Amino acid sequence: MPYPAGRHFLQIPGPTNVPDRVLRAISAPTIDHRGPDFAVLAREVLDALKPVFGTSDPVVAYPSSGTGAWEAALVNTLSPGDRVLAFETGHFATLWRDLAVNLGLDVDLVPGDWRHGVDPAVLAEKLAGDSTIKAVCVVHNETSTGVTSRVPEIRRALDEAGHPALLLVDTVSSLGSVEYRHDEWGVDVTVSCSQKGLLLPPGLGFNAVSEKALRAAESAGFRRAYWDWRPILAANERGYFPYTPPTNLLYGLRESLAILAEEGLEAVFARHRRHGEATRAAVRGWGLEVLALDEREYSPVLTAVLVPEGHDADKIRALILDRFNMSLGTGLGRLAGRVFRIGHLGHFNDVSLAGTLSGVHMGLSLAGVPVRPGGVDAALRVLELT
Amino acid sequence: MPYPAGRHFLQIPGPTNVPDRVLRAISAPTIDHRGPDFAVLAREVLDALKPVFGTSDPVVAYPSSGTGAWEAALVNTLSPGDRVLAFETGHFATLWRDLAVNLGLDVDLVPGDWRHGVDPAVLAEKLAGDSTIKAVCVVHNETSTGVTSRVPEIRRALDEAGHPALLLVDTVSSLGSVEYRHDEWGVDVTVSCSQKGLLLPPGLGFNAVSEKALRAAESAGFRRAYWDWRPILAANERGYFPYTPPTNLLYGLRESLAILAEEGLEAVFARHRRHGEATRAAVRGWGLEVLALDEREYSPVLTAVLVPEGHDADKIRALILDRFNMSLGTGLGRLAGRVFRIGHLGHFNDVSLAGTLSGVHMGLSLAGVPVRPGGVDAALRVLELT
Amino acid sequence: MPYPAGRHFLQIPGPTNVPDRVLRAISAPTIDHRGPDFAVLAREVLDALKPVFGTSDPVVAYPSSGTGAWEAALVNTLSPGDRVLAFETGHFATLWRDLAVNLGLDVDLVPGDWRHGVDPAVLAEKLAGDSTIKAVCVVHNETSTGVTSRVPEIRRALDEAGHPALLLVDTVSSLGSVEYRHDEWGVDVTVSCSQKGLLLPPGLGFNAVSEKALRAAESAGFRRAYWDWRPILAANERGYFPYTPPTNLLYGLRESLAILAEEGLEAVFARHRRHGEATRAAVRGWGLEVLALDEREYSPVLTAVLVPEGHDADKIRALILDRFNMSLGTGLGRLAGRVFRIGHLGHFNDVSLAGTLSGVHMGLSLAGVPVRPGGVDAALRVLELT
Amino acid sequence: MPYPAGRHFLQIPGPTNVPDRVLRAISAPTIDHRGPDFAVLAREVLDALKPVFGTSDPVVAYPSSGTGAWEAALVNTLSPGDRVLAFETGHFATLWRDLAVNLGLDVDLVPGDWRHGVDPAVLAEKLAGDSTIKAVCVVHNETSTGVTSRVPEIRRALDEAGHPALLLVDTVSSLGSVEYRHDEWGVDVTVSCSQKGLLLPPGLGFNAVSEKALRAAESAGFRRAYWDWRPILAANERGYFPYTPPTNLLYGLRESLAILAEEGLEAVFARHRRHGEATRAAVRGWGLEVLALDEREYSPVLTAVLVPEGHDADKIRALILDRFNMSLGTGLGRLAGRVFRIGHLGHFNDVSLAGTLSGVHMGLSLAGVPVRPGGVDAALRVLELT
Repeated sequence: MPYPAGRHFLQIPGPTNVPDRVLRAISAPTIDHRGPDFAVLAREVLDALKPVFGTSDPVVAYPSSGTGAWEAALVNTLSPGDRVLAFETGHFATLWRDLAVNLGLDVDLVPGDWRHGVDPAVLAEKLAGDSTIKAVCVVHNETSTGVTSRVPEIRRALDEAGHPALLLVDTVSSLGSVEYRHDEWGVDVTVSCSQKGLLLPPGLGFNAVSEKALRAAESAGFRRAYWDWRPILAANERGYFPYTPPTNLLYGLRESLAILAEEGLEAVFARHRRHGEATRAAVRGWGLEVLALDEREYSPVLTAVLVPEGHDADKIRALILDRFNMSLGTGLGRLAGRVFRIGHLGHFNDVSLAGTLSGVHMGLSLAGVPVRPGGVDAALRVLELT
Repeated sequence: MPYPAGRHFLQIPGPTNVPDRVLRAISAPTIDHRGPDFAVLAREVLDALKPVFGTSDPVVAYPSSGTGAWEAALVNTLSPGDRVLAFETGHFATLWRDLAVNLGLDVDLVPGDWRHGVDPAVLAEKLAGDSTIKAVCVVHNETSTGVTSRVPEIRRALDEAGHPALLLVDTVSSLGSVEYRHDEWGVDVTVSCSQKGLLLPPGLGFNAVSEKALRAAESAGFRRAYWDWRPILAANERGYFPYTPPTNLLYGLRESLAILAEEGLEAVFARHRRHGEATRAAVRGWGLEVLALDEREYSPVLTAVLVPEGHDADKIRALILDRFNMSLGTGLGRLAGRVFRIGHLGHFNDVSLAGTLSGVHMGLSLAGVPVRPGGVDAALRVLELT
Repeated sequence: MPYPAGRHFLQIPGPTNVPDRVLRAISAPTIDHRGPDFAVLAREVLDALKPVFGTSDPVVAYPSSGTGAWEAALVNTLSPGDRVLAFETGHFATLWRDLAVNLGLDVDLVPGDWRHGVDPAVLAEKLAGDSTIKAVCVVHNETSTGVTSRVPEIRRALDEAGHPALLLVDTVSSLGSVEYRHDEWGVDVTVSCSQKGLLLPPGLGFNAVSEKALRAAESAGFRRAYWDWRPILAANERGYFPYTPPTNLLYGLRESLAILAEEGLEAVFARHRRHGEATRAAVRGWGLEVLALDEREYSPVLTAVLVPEGHDADKIRALILDRFNMSLGTGLGRLAGRVFRIGHLGHFNDVSLAGTLSGVHMGLSLAGVPVRPGGVDAALRVLELT
Repeated sequence: MPYPAGRHFLQIPGPTNVPDRVLRAISAPTIDHRGPDFAVLAREVLDALKPVFGTSDPVVAYPSSGTGAWEAALVNTLSPGDRVLAFETGHFATLWRDLAVNLGLDVDLVPGDWRHGVDPAVLAEKLAGDSTIKAVCVVHNETSTGVTSRVPEIRRALDEAGHPALLLVDTVSSLGSVEYRHDEWGVDVTVSCSQKGLLLPPGLGFNAVSEKALRAAESAGFRRAYWDWRPILAANERGYFPYTPPTNLLYGLRESLAILAEEGLEAVFARHRRHGEATRAAVRGWGLEVLALDEREYSPVLTAVLVPEGHDADKIRALILDRFNMSLGTGLGRLAGRVFRIGHLGHFNDVSLAGTLSGVHMGLSLAGVPVRPGGVDAALRVLELT
């Protein structure tokens, strides 16, 4: 495999660039998962995770991908055939729907244009008309589109309807990067995983679990074993797991939570907002279009960019990978070939963003996409002034 | 946390001592799981895994623990209510049974004394009397007891009965350490995971899947999503996964498979057999009793040692951990306090084993267990002469 | 210590950004420096170093800094009181002179303006007038100024004068980044070290040694022990060293030489030339002045930038470090406060350079230095078109 | 290169087994050696080194081997032709003498049998007879023989003679493992390096420098540059170095000093004494002879073992390396083939020692050396009881 010069720029919206501190942490020797040192580690990380979720509820950690954490949220709280309301905000919302259907749930998917988030007004309508809905599934930040849904307004719609449905929120690409408040926003299960804002390699899935969700778990009809919260929560109290946990990722998690705490969560969120704004300034500076249409829903963690008719976004991505040693996100599902996605989340800073946008600019230009020259400068102005 | 001098001896029967080569490998930066370099990696490791399973069948890799791989084997091949035959060879066989019951299977557990493996004659009887058995679940190497069941004889019993039941085998603590032949022994699903003979940290689960198992998956009645083999196998063909795979563990897997290939699987198996023999020589030299009763079933990867009446195995373990910086395996389930387990598998050699047995000897002696002095010497003689 | 977000940009002209592959390599366990594996390693790296120096002569490796390698070049070839000709091309040429004087050599330092390299015409004059000169000391790439002297023309001046002086060349910041040919250019001792183009942390010094230099070593009058080439070369033949070598840096060297070979030395040199050109385009685009005055001498590895009167270059550097997590080189000696230096060498690529230049642009702007906006765009054009 | 199973046992008396914490520390990215973070690091490690030397004097750190630190001690304090008294305690004392002679010193080497340390009575005699002696050079722990000289008695001899000679002590293989008190014992220059008790890879040399040595440096006649203490001490005050320091080894040093502090120096010293005693018990249990003859001089860090006539120690070492993946120290100089050396220092513990001694036992036995069986057991008794 030829060695491309310099550091790779992993600017997909996750997995993100893992800090070298975290990589070193995960390379420590594996220890006895039933020994006293492990219990100290486990309790420490399970506690330190809570502020990142904005919760005092327990957080369950699985050896799994985020998809596994989706499945866990559903099988712990629902019963086969239960009615679930979901919103077609993009590719990942659709995949979650598919997973729910595969498990035997009855999913009502509100159609969407993949350029908007969940519309709280439509939710309100749906709730008004259907008391059988057992859960509302929302993707907080649609990784396929760069659209962030407004969870507080979603919560308000539920509250105003007085509807008892559980609120299940996927924060796979927002947790640790975008403001999120599991408790304050009344979320019942927050689904997340390790490889985005939590600055880790893939391999850990999470469920933050409200009191109400725990009660639902008691009567939920799905047969479950691996995903069952109850034995995990019971074992976690003593610092253990009912099955062998991914020790080395937990080392990494301890380090990444320390990194987030050192910068401060509010500073982390502000940095991501700035980078989103700077990126959109670049896109507009080039004369291109951001996929997200509603400025209240612009994602702080990634920006999907529409390529002009007649250009293939994946060819541009391949050129940029080959020539500039930078990975961008592909267009997923119905957006294939039409957008590329710039990840600007995680272990990232202003000069890395400037390098990223410069690579995009050069790649577009070399690919023959007509772009105006001032895009990078527009981004730099945002970074300078904010 | 005070720093204990010198290298920790992780002599539980897994997770095992991860080679530093593997630890360095997993600390490489995470790459784009949809990019070309990832596809090269994935295809390479999925292929290189096959000889370790003794198969030309596909191997499915999950971000999961071994428990997840148990669940995957069941939900891909069976339907709720199906009758499954299992054998109470120890703690893990019992846990697998519990998991199956939780999923809604009808498990017939043949009782056992936790000192023997699966009795092929009992299996033959069971098969003769019950044509409704859909699957036979066997733990190849019982990690809780140090007993290795004879899978070829189990296969023969199935063949002689002409019984169509699937054969599902857990090789969690044997794969990569003990001779195993998925194809030749006619196993339908081989369940395994990363943290034992595969020399990795925990976090990867595996299913090697026979043609017959794949056919069973087509008609299996369990609803499934995360564990479903079919989308994984389809994506694997191009070198990808349907959800974000644990990239860094795959780096480690590439390295650990290289390490196994460099030593040679036959040499690896022989090394483990020698170490089992030397360990039993030490135990007998001390005047203590090995838990396993049938010499045909002695485990090459761990040895469970009975402590004399009046002694608490866990206190001895705690003393050894504290004083000698060595972790031994605890007695599980009904063996709690009555045995400790010496792991002698994975990244290991003669002098490490000698150090391990010396630590056990000193720990027993300091704990007041009456032990004869010649145990370590007896082990050294085995190592010298074989 | 607060954690600055994202990857640090180490854009001083050395130590350079060490590739993660090299960092992992140096973290392998230290081995017996008298054992067979060590001999394989030593011979491999000492051989693989030769093409980087452009030589078939032996290369001596010291546990030392580059300063140590300067001292080694002098004490192995000269005698106390010997006359040496040197050129004041900048701070490091001056330091080498100081070191030579401290050792008791009689150094004739040709004065310079720190904006030009060695003038071959002046050298010719000096040689014509002074047959007592025993050695000519040249800094190939002046790290303090960003000026690269033309060694082939220097060689020609020596040849045309028929002067027997030894030619000693410091390639500390050029080796592995800028074209260099020890043999073809008739250099007698090439001095270098690990932490620049060789992509390693500091800790290894090098002398490539011509046949003529080896002969000079036989009669050189300096008493020497640690630096003595002869016992080292004798031990190296069998793959060993006369004293404990820095094993882990040799691991890193094996990896970094592999990295250079994978990219190809010619491609490495071309990349550095492009980056130099792009950087100068940016500097001019901002309306600032490059320190180097002769375009034949522009350094491909670093660019020193003059800051306008009334501005303190070190305050700008501090602002950039604080705000953008990027280190730039300080002005050294008489250039203190008047220049900053942008390192664009080593493990580096187009997007990293674009990020670097963007950080400089923003830093200058925030520091109140009047800069025109088009600098980064000018650099991107160079990168796109070449 | 075939992969030997399990962890390598690096039981030479240095380089020692580097703790994985230290290996991870040295793999952190190199930083700007002129930046603020570096200054924090440098000051921290230079301060934390002092208790290990037992001094409040400054410690100079060189990018060098221990040999370089020998040279530094001499050229900073002496003048060409100065008379120096040394003691032939073994190979390294002889090498230091050779180095001093090469530098032009007039060395009086008191002959020795390589089985004893410095005899304070002989020193007293020498001092009485020769007022021209400028320095006394002592190797604290002779790495080639396993003999530790009694520095306090050497100091007393100097004091009683009222002799002004400087006392220069090599602690290469004792520092951080054997009790040592630079201040209390009135040592003028303590020479050491990184790769033994300091738990690091090779690459750092040290001089702890008394007030008297600093005064000597003012009038010392050796021309010096790289080794000159004065510019280093001046720069160190601000946390910097006059030339590029080996940053990554300093990271490692910070970690290894933390490890020593966590265990506690007194506990570290006691551990090494116990391991020396246990090793000698094993040697005698085998019926073999320890090289060191005076029990007051037994080394806590290594044991040299005489092999019976008719056996080649290096063949035994080769067999042990090949068969047991363990490196032992070779016989050096006049001891070649006649002894092997067991290193039991650094990052080490009881079970590692037991494994080491077991490997030696098996290797001797397989090599046909007549050894009694009880050696390892004798060592275990020492470890158990002390």
